[in-house]
Amino acid sequence: MTTSASSIGIVAPQRAHFDTPLSLKSGGVLPAYDLVYETYGTLNATASNAVLVCHALSGSHHVAGVHADNPKSVGWWDNLVGPGKPLDTDKFFVIGVNNLGGCYGSTGPMSIEPASGKPWGSRFPFVTVEDWVDSQARLADLLGIQQFAAVLGGSLGGMQALDWTLRYADRVRHGMVIAAAPKLSAENIAFNEVARQAILSDPTFHGGDYYEYGVVPVSGLRLARMLGHITYLSDDAMAEKFGRRLRHGEHQFGRGVDFEIESYLHYQGDKFAGFFDANTYLLTTKALDYFDPAYAYDGNLQAALARAKAKFFIASFTTDWRFSPARSQELVFPLMHNGLDVTYAELDSAAGHDSFLLDDPHYHAAMRAYFNNIEV
Amino acid sequence: MTTSASSIGIVAPQRAHFDTPLSLKSGGVLPAYDLVYETYGTLNATASNAVLVCHALSGSHHVAGVHADNPKSVGWWDNLVGPGKPLDTDKFFVIGVNNLGGCYGSTGPMSIEPASGKPWGSRFPFVTVEDWVDSQARLADLLGIQQFAAVLGGSLGGMQALDWTLRYADRVRHGMVIAAAPKLSAENIAFNEVARQAILSDPTFHGGDYYEYGVVPVSGLRLARMLGHITYLSDDAMAEKFGRRLRHGEHQFGRGVDFEIESYLHYQGDKFAGFFDANTYLLTTKALDYFDPAYAYDGNLQAALARAKAKFFIASFTTDWRFSPARSQELVFPLMHNGLDVTYAELDSAAGHDSFLLDDPHYHAAMRAYFNNIEV
Repeated sequence: MTTSASSIGIVAPQRAHFDTPLSLKSGGVLPAYDLVYETYGTLNATASNAVLVCHALSGSHHVAGVHADNPKSVGWWDNLVGPGKPLDTDKFFVIGVNNLGGCYGSTGPMSIEPASGKPWGSRFPFVTVEDWVDSQARLADLLGIQQFAAVLGGSLGGMQALDWTLRYADRVRHGMVIAAAPKLSAENIAFNEVARQAILSDPTFHGGDYYEYGVVPVSGLRLARMLGHITYLSDDAMAEKFGRRLRHGEHQFGRGVDFEIESYLHYQGDKFAGFFDANTYLLTTKALDYFDPAYAYDGNLQAALARAKAKFFIASFTTDWRFSPARSQELVFPLMHNGLDVTYAELDSAAGHDSFLLDDPHYHAAMRAYFNNIEV
Repeated sequence: MTTSASSIGIVAPQRAHFDTPLSLKSGGVLPAYDLVYETYGTLNATASNAVLVCHALSGSHHVAGVHADNPKSVGWWDNLVGPGKPLDTDKFFVIGVNNLGGCYGSTGPMSIEPASGKPWGSRFPFVTVEDWVDSQARLADLLGIQQFAAVLGGSLGGMQALDWTLRYADRVRHGMVIAAAPKLSAENIAFNEVARQAILSDPTFHGGDYYEYGVVPVSGLRLARMLGHITYLSDDAMAEKFGRRLRHGEHQFGRGVDFEIESYLHYQGDKFAGFFDANTYLLTTKALDYFDPAYAYDGNLQAALARAKAKFFIASFTTDWRFSPARSQELVFPLMHNGLDVTYAELDSAAGHDSFLLDDPHYHAAMRAYFNNIEV
């Protein structure tokens, strides 16, 4: 990935410390914590132009621009966020924040637990989408933002945006939910569980306290990521990108790589296992599984969504089979029935779930138009 | 699973030993081997009523009936094969055979390698669909069967049936290819590769020679099977069977099981890891990956299929996303263009890939009608 001419350029993460204990949905309490975040653009005098970007499973606070010490460290949504880009930092003040339990600087399982002086590891509490949103709201308080112009995200990030519109209905004017769903299906949960079991059954996991052993459950993480990657791509995209192309020109008749697709998955798995934290993976997939705003409403999604006051932008991608258009539509009609203003874009894209990270012209045109129409 | 009133009843496996070396597609040679098989019904005087049933990844020679020592050991296609059943053993002489490299009695990685006196393990050669079919042809010779009335199978079994019609075109009158495809897609291969990597990265795998260590790569096999199971079921079937039903009534906020679907996958994985051989899993998934009759014909499937002389019965299931109806149709039209008689049934079924093992009334009616019309 490279920065474009209109990239925000060099950016630096910031850190906020919170001393007020955070009550978690699990019943636990996080006594104190740090959030690492980045901001792009300038907050206006009335603080009416703030936009929060929520990240998905493997994302981070580093949404746009590059870090000074690493020109390759381009933000994960740099194609969307920057001066003159669809989410225009000449107009908006954009915030990216690493979620609690993450592994990019915010307090998480790798952090030192004050009480023990050792990494939290297995003792780090399971956090939920709601806990993340609560912690993000405190960051907004700290930054003097009473109401976001928009909160947005793709996939798990979209679930956070949705939760913002429900539990902080007065603090968000536009909820933008992209390539997401109001809850995981049994199949979604099943894939997450296989990934978790891969990590849990890796003998170097040591019950989650591998930091103390100086090891990393590399093969578990690698398997989890390989499996995840299959669900991020579409069958069509894989067929077009790899098909049955052989790595060595002929069948090897052994246990090694025969096909390019295998090689690609190995590469993605190895790369991911080299930097991501296994406990964060477990926590984050559980947060995905748990999210279900209708759960406390006897499964009545329309009733659950009745709290929302925001306007909505909902987008899905035709070949996304992790969260198919039908799953996004589950949100559209209840919101409309509740009398809310909903823009729904179903976008043709061959790239599957990953489409939300790409810069398809129709997709970005829809985003640009929507952001242009947001008053600040 | 229970036997029905019309079950074939108690059956006993038989064993055939072959001393003539078998040349493998990999270039290797299997010096001698055993095949374990079962037969149901009676071979007629002209040996014109023989039907070969080929098994899929985890199947075996035990197609129908029960073994005397275990009343629960019902054959995997007992609902299809028996007196008065769609594949009627009052009319046909039906053969099931455990494939080479298997773990149900035929020579495979668990067998003793004569040269070393130790289990073959990592030294067992990689076998292909074509090698299986060659070995099955020798069993047919032994049983005095020059030509099969039909060769059939589901999934990987369907690939064997297809290969029979191509490389032994004069020895099969009807090829019945169910819930299969002419080759795996990149996505199919990707799922297989993640399953293989789960086994290969299990430290108890010991490079494939775990027999000598008295251990079994249980967690690798378990992961492989959990993943496989997701692809055997449909999203709809999972939603209906499990949905988001909780195992313990409320979220646990831990690493354990929250949802029924997780519990189901654990059960399936544990059960499978208790009896299946990891090396067989590796060999069999590679055989799946390699199968591609058009490979030697520059990808021209119609040219590859020009060798076939049989009549075809091809069936697919609407919710099968492992081998979708579109994948079965890849076979239908080239065969028709080649002037062959093709019956194609696209069956409504909510059960995904596993549908081919179930006794949906329309499915079995189509099979019954087809078998009734086969002259013997």
